[in-house]
Amino acid sequence: MNVAGRHYRTIWLNEDGAAVDIIDQRWLPHAFRVATLRTVEDVAVAIREMWVRGAPLIGVTAAYGVAIGMREDPSDTALDAVWETLHETRPTAINLRWALDEMRGLLRPLPPGERAAAAYGRAGEIADQDVELNRGIGRHGMEIIRSIAARKKPGEPVNILTHCNAGWLATVDYGTATAPIYMAADEGIPLHVYVDETRPRNQGAYLTAWEMAGHGVPHTLIVDNAGGHLMQRGAVDMVIVGTDRTTARGDVCNKIGTYLKALAAHDNGVPFYVALPSPTIDWSVSDGLAEIPIEERSPDEVTLVWGLSENGEVERVRISPEASPAANPAFDVTPARLVTGLITERGIASASPEGLRRLFPERSSA
Amino acid sequence: MNVAGRHYRTIWLNEDGAAVDIIDQRWLPHAFRVATLRTVEDVAVAIREMWVRGAPLIGVTAAYGVAIGMREDPSDTALDAVWETLHETRPTAINLRWALDEMRGLLRPLPPGERAAAAYGRAGEIADQDVELNRGIGRHGMEIIRSIAARKKPGEPVNILTHCNAGWLATVDYGTATAPIYMAADEGIPLHVYVDETRPRNQGAYLTAWEMAGHGVPHTLIVDNAGGHLMQRGAVDMVIVGTDRTTARGDVCNKIGTYLKALAAHDNGVPFYVALPSPTIDWSVSDGLAEIPIEERSPDEVTLVWGLSENGEVERVRISPEASPAANPAFDVTPARLVTGLITERGIASASPEGLRRLFPERSSA
Repeated sequence: MNVAGRHYRTIWLNEDGAAVDIIDQRWLPHAFRVATLRTVEDVAVAIREMWVRGAPLIGVTAAYGVAIGMREDPSDTALDAVWETLHETRPTAINLRWALDEMRGLLRPLPPGERAAAAYGRAGEIADQDVELNRGIGRHGMEIIRSIAARKKPGEPVNILTHCNAGWLATVDYGTATAPIYMAADEGIPLHVYVDETRPRNQGAYLTAWEMAGHGVPHTLIVDNAGGHLMQRGAVDMVIVGTDRTTARGDVCNKIGTYLKALAAHDNGVPFYVALPSPTIDWSVSDGLAEIPIEERSPDEVTLVWGLSENGEVERVRISPEASPAANPAFDVTPARLVTGLITERGIASASPEGLRRLFPERSSA
Repeated sequence: MNVAGRHYRTIWLNEDGAAVDIIDQRWLPHAFRVATLRTVEDVAVAIREMWVRGAPLIGVTAAYGVAIGMREDPSDTALDAVWETLHETRPTAINLRWALDEMRGLLRPLPPGERAAAAYGRAGEIADQDVELNRGIGRHGMEIIRSIAARKKPGEPVNILTHCNAGWLATVDYGTATAPIYMAADEGIPLHVYVDETRPRNQGAYLTAWEMAGHGVPHTLIVDNAGGHLMQRGAVDMVIVGTDRTTARGDVCNKIGTYLKALAAHDNGVPFYVALPSPTIDWSVSDGLAEIPIEERSPDEVTLVWGLSENGEVERVRISPEASPAANPAFDVTPARLVTGLITERGIASASPEGLRRLFPERSSA
C-alpha cells in the first residue's frame, strides 16, 4: 500500500538481487525506516526482534532467509542449519515453520548449484501468493462495503470499525481485515475507519492508524472502550477484524478485546465480519472457548507504554504503581454466534460448520 | 483508607485549624504528596487543575474554600466573590455548585462575625456526610460479596472487576464502587479485584490500583480489553462500577467502556452492580441513551499517555501518528436491562422505575 504517495510492500528483493529489504516496523509510527537484510543472522534478528511481525510476513521473511542462506552455502548441512536458526526465532509461529518446511522440501532434492536460484524464486512466489490471498479477501469484502454504501445518501461514508492490526504491515501487502477497506477506498467508495488503539500493545494506534494515514484513508483513532458507545449512537456500519485462528465451526480467536466489540455489534445490530485467509482455519478444533489455550504475555506490556517523548525520543513510561501486579491475556475467543460472516479468499461463509464446509468442500471429511 | 499502613481521608483540616490539607492527586501513583491550601486562590487552583477530582470531593473542597474565604473576609461581597471564583473552576460540576449554594445559603443570614466558624463546621459536616453515604453503600454491597463468598470453597477469593476510579480518592473516604470492597476486605472476606486500566485517562491504573495497593487489597491490573475474556473463563464473580448519573429507570451513565463490561457480564451470567449515592440519581431523566449528552473531551487524552519515564520523571509520550485524528467520548450509557442491581446508601434497588421508587418513595411523584 502507499506510504506518502509511493507504493510499498513490507518486504522486497534488494536491487542487488541478493539481499532483502524490509520496513523496520519497530519505529512505526514515529519513523519510517527501511532495513536491508544481507545474512541469515540479519534475517533471524529481524524476525526475533520483531522488525517484521504478522504471521504471513514472518513466513515470507523466513523463506527469503533460506534463499540468502543458500547463496552463502548451498550444502545440506547449511540448509538444515538455516532451518534451525530461523525456526528458533519464533518457535511457535505456524507460518514460519510452514515456510521453512516448504523451502527445505523444495530445495533438498535439488543439486546444491541450483538451490539459491530456486529458493529466491519460491520465496518470491510465496510473497505473491500472500498478496493474491489478500486480494481475494479484499474483493469479497469490498462487495459488503459497496452494498452498505448503496443504502446511504450519496457521498456519505461507510463507517467501519477495526481492532488491532490485521493490515498490510502484517502481510506482504493489502492485509486481511484491511484488504476490503483499501480496495473499496481505491474504488472511490466513501468510507471512514474507526481504529481501536488496541491495548496493551497499541497495534491500532501504532500501525493501523499509520497505514490509514499513509494510504490516505479517512480514519479516527479511538480507545478500545469507545466502540460500544459509537455503535449505540449509530456511528458504526460494520466491524471487520482479522483472526489468528478460526475453528471449524467458526469460533474466532483474535487479539484480546475482539469479543467485547462482537458483543456490542450484536447488541446494536451492526454486522461483525472476520477476514481470514483459509490457512488460518484450524479444521482440527471446533469449540474455540474450550479448546484454544490463550497465551499469557508479559505484564510489562500492560504497565509500560512506548511512545514518542516531547524531546523526540522513543521511550517507555510506566503507568501503574510498582506494587500492582498485572495480567496480560493476549487473545480472546469470539463465539461463532456473534459473527455475521467470515470473509475468505473464496467468498463469504457463515460462521458455522455448514458455512465453512460449503466454501471448502475438500475439508468435508475433516 | 490506608496508605502505607496509615489512615487518610482525601481532605482534612490542617492542624492550624484554618488551612486545609489534601492529597495532591496529580502525582499518583508515582508520588504521594500532601498539599496545604491556605487561600481561596489555592483552593481554586486545586480544583481547576485537578489536584482533587471526583464529584463528592470537589464539593467538599469547595465548601472548605468558602470557609477559608470567610476567615479572610466575612463580608457579603467576599461571600459572593468566593462563590464566583470557585464556581468558575469547574462550571459544569453539579456537586461543586450544590456545595457553594449550600454554604452561601447557610452563611448569608448570619452576622459576618459568625460566618467563618459556621462555614468550617458545615464543611466538616458535608465531608462527614459523604463518608456516611459511602459507608451505607459499603454495608449493603458487602452483603452481596459475603453471599458470593459463602458459595465458594473456604479461603477462595471473590473476584470483583471494576472500571475507572469510583474509589476513595474520588470521595472523602471509602469511595462508592470501592466501599463494598474495602468493607469486605476489612471484615476478612477473601477477595481479589481486577482493575481495568480505563483508557484514555488511566484512572484505574493510576488511582484504583494505587488505592488497592495502599490498603492491602489483592488486585491485578488489566487492560480494558481483557475483562470479557476473564468473564468467559469464569474468573470474575461480580462487577461493581460507579456512575456519574443514573436515570429514574436505572440507565447508568459512567466512564466510557462501562457498557462493554456490562454486555460481557450479561453474556456470561456475571452479576453487574452499580454503586451510587442517591444524589447522583437524575429523577428528571428516564431514557439515558436518548437524553444524556455525552461529553467529547480532548483528543490529546487518547494520543498522549502520562507515565513515569526510566529516568524518574513524570512525562507524556505520543502513541499515534501526528497525521491521525482521534475522538474521545468520555462516557457511555449502560441500559438498565444489563444492570443486576443499584447499590445505594438505602439498600439495593433493581434497575427499574419500580425498583428505584420502592427505595425512594418520596420521589414517587417525580
